[in-house]
Amino acid sequence: MTAPAGRTFGSDNHAGVHPAVLAAITAANSGDAVAYGDDALTKAAVARLCAEAGARSGYLVFNGTGANVLALSLLLRPYEAVICAESSHLNVDECGAPERVLGSKLLAVPAPDGKLTPDLVGARLSGGGDEHRAQPRVVQIAEATELGTCYSLAELQQLREFSRAHGLLIYLDGARIANAAAHLGCPLADIATCADVLSFGGTKNGALGVEAVLVMTDGLDAGAPYHRKQLMQLASKMRFLAAQVDALLEEDRWLTTARHANAMAGHLGSALTHVAGVRVAYPVQSNAVFTEVSRDLADRLLREWRIEVWSESADHERCVLRWMTAFDTTAEDVATLVASVERAAADTGAQGAG
Amino acid sequence: MTAPAGRTFGSDNHAGVHPAVLAAITAANSGDAVAYGDDALTKAAVARLCAEAGARSGYLVFNGTGANVLALSLLLRPYEAVICAESSHLNVDECGAPERVLGSKLLAVPAPDGKLTPDLVGARLSGGGDEHRAQPRVVQIAEATELGTCYSLAELQQLREFSRAHGLLIYLDGARIANAAAHLGCPLADIATCADVLSFGGTKNGALGVEAVLVMTDGLDAGAPYHRKQLMQLASKMRFLAAQVDALLEEDRWLTTARHANAMAGHLGSALTHVAGVRVAYPVQSNAVFTEVSRDLADRLLREWRIEVWSESADHERCVLRWMTAFDTTAEDVATLVASVERAAADTGAQGAG
Amino acid sequence: MTAPAGRTFGSDNHAGVHPAVLAAITAANSGDAVAYGDDALTKAAVARLCAEAGARSGYLVFNGTGANVLALSLLLRPYEAVICAESSHLNVDECGAPERVLGSKLLAVPAPDGKLTPDLVGARLSGGGDEHRAQPRVVQIAEATELGTCYSLAELQQLREFSRAHGLLIYLDGARIANAAAHLGCPLADIATCADVLSFGGTKNGALGVEAVLVMTDGLDAGAPYHRKQLMQLASKMRFLAAQVDALLEEDRWLTTARHANAMAGHLGSALTHVAGVRVAYPVQSNAVFTEVSRDLADRLLREWRIEVWSESADHERCVLRWMTAFDTTAEDVATLVASVERAAADTGAQGAG
Amino acid sequence: MTAPAGRTFGSDNHAGVHPAVLAAITAANSGDAVAYGDDALTKAAVARLCAEAGARSGYLVFNGTGANVLALSLLLRPYEAVICAESSHLNVDECGAPERVLGSKLLAVPAPDGKLTPDLVGARLSGGGDEHRAQPRVVQIAEATELGTCYSLAELQQLREFSRAHGLLIYLDGARIANAAAHLGCPLADIATCADVLSFGGTKNGALGVEAVLVMTDGLDAGAPYHRKQLMQLASKMRFLAAQVDALLEEDRWLTTARHANAMAGHLGSALTHVAGVRVAYPVQSNAVFTEVSRDLADRLLREWRIEVWSESADHERCVLRWMTAFDTTAEDVATLVASVERAAADTGAQGAG
Repeated sequence: MTAPAGRTFGSDNHAGVHPAVLAAITAANSGDAVAYGDDALTKAAVARLCAEAGARSGYLVFNGTGANVLALSLLLRPYEAVICAESSHLNVDECGAPERVLGSKLLAVPAPDGKLTPDLVGARLSGGGDEHRAQPRVVQIAEATELGTCYSLAELQQLREFSRAHGLLIYLDGARIANAAAHLGCPLADIATCADVLSFGGTKNGALGVEAVLVMTDGLDAGAPYHRKQLMQLASKMRFLAAQVDALLEEDRWLTTARHANAMAGHLGSALTHVAGVRVAYPVQSNAVFTEVSRDLADRLLREWRIEVWSESADHERCVLRWMTAFDTTAEDVATLVASVERAAADTGAQGAG
Repeated sequence: MTAPAGRTFGSDNHAGVHPAVLAAITAANSGDAVAYGDDALTKAAVARLCAEAGARSGYLVFNGTGANVLALSLLLRPYEAVICAESSHLNVDECGAPERVLGSKLLAVPAPDGKLTPDLVGARLSGGGDEHRAQPRVVQIAEATELGTCYSLAELQQLREFSRAHGLLIYLDGARIANAAAHLGCPLADIATCADVLSFGGTKNGALGVEAVLVMTDGLDAGAPYHRKQLMQLASKMRFLAAQVDALLEEDRWLTTARHANAMAGHLGSALTHVAGVRVAYPVQSNAVFTEVSRDLADRLLREWRIEVWSESADHERCVLRWMTAFDTTAEDVATLVASVERAAADTGAQGAG
Repeated sequence: MTAPAGRTFGSDNHAGVHPAVLAAITAANSGDAVAYGDDALTKAAVARLCAEAGARSGYLVFNGTGANVLALSLLLRPYEAVICAESSHLNVDECGAPERVLGSKLLAVPAPDGKLTPDLVGARLSGGGDEHRAQPRVVQIAEATELGTCYSLAELQQLREFSRAHGLLIYLDGARIANAAAHLGCPLADIATCADVLSFGGTKNGALGVEAVLVMTDGLDAGAPYHRKQLMQLASKMRFLAAQVDALLEEDRWLTTARHANAMAGHLGSALTHVAGVRVAYPVQSNAVFTEVSRDLADRLLREWRIEVWSESADHERCVLRWMTAFDTTAEDVATLVASVERAAADTGAQGAG
Repeated sequence: MTAPAGRTFGSDNHAGVHPAVLAAITAANSGDAVAYGDDALTKAAVARLCAEAGARSGYLVFNGTGANVLALSLLLRPYEAVICAESSHLNVDECGAPERVLGSKLLAVPAPDGKLTPDLVGARLSGGGDEHRAQPRVVQIAEATELGTCYSLAELQQLREFSRAHGLLIYLDGARIANAAAHLGCPLADIATCADVLSFGGTKNGALGVEAVLVMTDGLDAGAPYHRKQLMQLASKMRFLAAQVDALLEEDRWLTTARHANAMAGHLGSALTHVAGVRVAYPVQSNAVFTEVSRDLADRLLREWRIEVWSESADHERCVLRWMTAFDTTAEDVATLVASVERAAADTGAQGAG
């Protein structure tokens, strides 16, 4: 049994760079340009992105960790805490960067589908005003979430209202905000307006490597340039980050690519629903499909595919596997994967029955 | 009088990307690759760079600030301090990133030509063993220095011996190590061997954006992958950073480009030596030329050129201006600049005389 | 209805200083003594405490937060995390000091009675070796716990063995270790030996203000003096901290006082068991009694007593109240409290019935 | 030759506790008091101190490092820097605590007599507005300085005006503010009004261990209670810190004790002026006398006295020794020291002549 060549489904980070993005980088490579973002291309691209999101200001950074930490640095004093979902990328997958770099406490809340609610947030507010407790200040949400689910606009607005009523600020991690916008069928600004600060992810959506931190609320961006520099996120040849953003915004490419990835995940999720022994664990609302399978089936699939075991049941008998699509996933890629899962499931079943 | 088009001489970061680097990025954009550096291209490029430097391990990062902070994170416990030149990039131009992110104290030493000596380092060691003092642990040097000067190999070895004798580690900031190697006419490993950890700069030498942290001394890289992630320097699509390193190493391109930039700076420095009212402030040993001029002459030049006033005399009558060349600076660019300086100097002199 | 004078039951920190401790402070106030602990009294007291605990070295600090943060600073590199009970003082009541000052992530585990088990710890180890996860390194336990419960020596040893087997270190928060030793009837060293580093609390046990950090395991105290100074815990007139420790150790006073406080809590717990509408929430194994009561009964008691509502049920109908005894709580104090609770419970019941 | 018993002259921290302070601690030890400063004694003492200084709010802490770091935490955002004298305690003797705990960069300025001036501060402002530089925000001064000198009120006011004009805040380290007030013969408020935040030192002036952070300027104390807790400076049995402050304020004891210590230093300085081979290095304006002597004389004195070599000339031939007086130094103590220095100087001279 040999590993399928090509598509890995392991992460949207396994994909390469969209040809239009690469073309834009190449086009930007002409003559000198002032460094650190004080060039025309950067100013134009950031302005364009801010206009799209309705943001007051924007700051390009290298990666998602950088975007998350920079964004939070604009919102937090040292004794303030971040309420987030226990399953959030921020809590699980940043190697403790917010704690180390910002010194901030995360108040992680179990959230079955990766989504916070006013009730879940409210349950972490009891320490407010008590000098012995880190003071809740930021509600961190991701759209799409780490589990591939999306908040509806109504859900976002409820969180927004609840947060305002309780003196909380919202940071929206938009590493996959394009997938969410594609799912919701709404303008970027409709999502962005529910946040005080958000990130706009490029890398997982066809860029080589660029994310943006967007500030929606007045007064929060004082000091952002200094924070970005200190947090090691200030690119010297910034125009090449800006060119990527520009290429993604041009002709709504960011939406087209995300729609495609979502569609591929949708096909995959639908097909896997019909495979015996496979349960699709969360609604497929972006470009991720989480499947719960037996340990045996998981082991077979892990021999063929470079993917992660997302989680395991306490008795080690069931696993959740994550499959991700990207801007360049093809229907054939999906068909290959589905066939592979069907085969493995059949083998498992046969052995299980034998 | 109009600003000359094209070459700015403001920074080697104003230059674009070397065509071979861009070609390598384009070539790397084929199919999926595992993210975060666990791909064949990254492994090969890092191995190649380590071989060139004689390093035990290497870690690609986004920019110079990231390289400096990651490198120091491998060397310092929280109560340990870094001895560095007062004029060093680390001390002056990182917006306090080492202090903020690592919590480390810098013990800055005035060093007239940007270079530390055993005596200068020794003068900061008096607090060793005193619990009230941050404990000197790392000697930070840059090769080439922020003032464009280079340590000779003998000077590096003296620092190395002094440091070993006093229980100090050396971090060498190699943002322009290619220019130093070109100046010294020695292999990378000859410089690298004098450091415990060093950085290898790509960005100022034709890359789009990549630096590497190289570990020379056994036992210092435990935890480097975690530090890199926490310090927001882990690229997801790492292959595109690796491709840049590969293109620079191929056919010794990193040396060729640096040699060219150095040669252009050499021409510029020689020519400016002959201009009345211009003093070349430091030996031209890499790709920077620092000129001391009157405030009046400086003002005329600043109207034409996008450069920095590096420093000013206390009476504001004299300024130091920095001019930098890059891999793509041409002899015509230099001639244009020299003519411009001659013209401005003549105007200044005429007015001064009038 | 007037508030009872005297005893508050709100905290063992509400108590004053044991007369013998005050006498020792007074006795220490004779002539000059070298500052920062380099005096004979400090050296003797620390040596005595280390001997009692079987510790390699000890460091006096000002308070419990300081002890917790200093202790963890000896055990953690920046990318390493602390596994602790969700209800732990460290997680809840330090205002995020470990995150801010050390930059460390806490991996908080729900633990019904405040006690970790190998299984609970094991469930947080999945991210080991993954550069995207903070690396579990320290198991933090408190003895007695924040809920007044005590680990048995067998339970401590199990945690010790589990931790060693998994490359984890144990930090034992001993703010109330005297109460635990009194409960277990064992020498201090029997508890201490299960930890790599522990704190020994004086303040809640009759001191004016002193805690000690004790290092059990070789190689962990390098740098402790520097950490203590940086963490703002180095007392200049250290002899007055040492005198307190000395007075507590003299004639096993630390044990006598703790035994007394435990006994008072035991009486209180027994008596409250018989009051209708009051449920003693956790086994009374130190000097705390947690009672679960109706919101109405809680409100009546809060009008009379300066205590905390520890927690509340989701429907706000039930509250847990914490009552604490101290070295100077008397049987009359307990009787007064019990009578007050009986009265309030009767009133509540009457009204509830009415 | 035996070491003189009693007075050490090594530090004002070598002294014990003033009897009135100890009496106040003893008097405070009556019954329960709510912890963490929510008791009547603490509220009264803090109010009294605030009234004396004209401060808006005050926060008691354990020691000088704690006071310095807490004060700065109220004034700085992460990318902001502190301008201070190179010789300042903050820069030299806090083991890098401001860098580690606050992440702040110190911009240390050589200041011959330990005092900053508008010119010295102005010379560090060039990086303002440049995202590559830590942004100067706080001017840190000490009154009295680490070299025993005092700013005049006019000098303080000049710094105040300069700072306001340049958007800078002033933090005044008042570890020895009592000695300065005694020297200047002015009310505490006259000094305090020149600062935005200051500390008021008790420990070096007869307390067992207490300092206060006083906030003069509106809007700077938001969050102070949380900072104090996070920075490990929140005493549980706060009343015993408050009692010390109260005893110092009572009958202007803080001034009386400081005046006495200053007078003893004055006598000492005058007497040493007349000893051949001894140069008094700085004006004696508080309770410290710095003497410059030959290495040989220094060595003789170090055999007799437990003091510090403050600094050494580059050729190791001359040393500066610091002698400190305290609230309980007697004229006999001073006479003993003077005789000892005279004897040692005579021996040195005799040998030098021999």
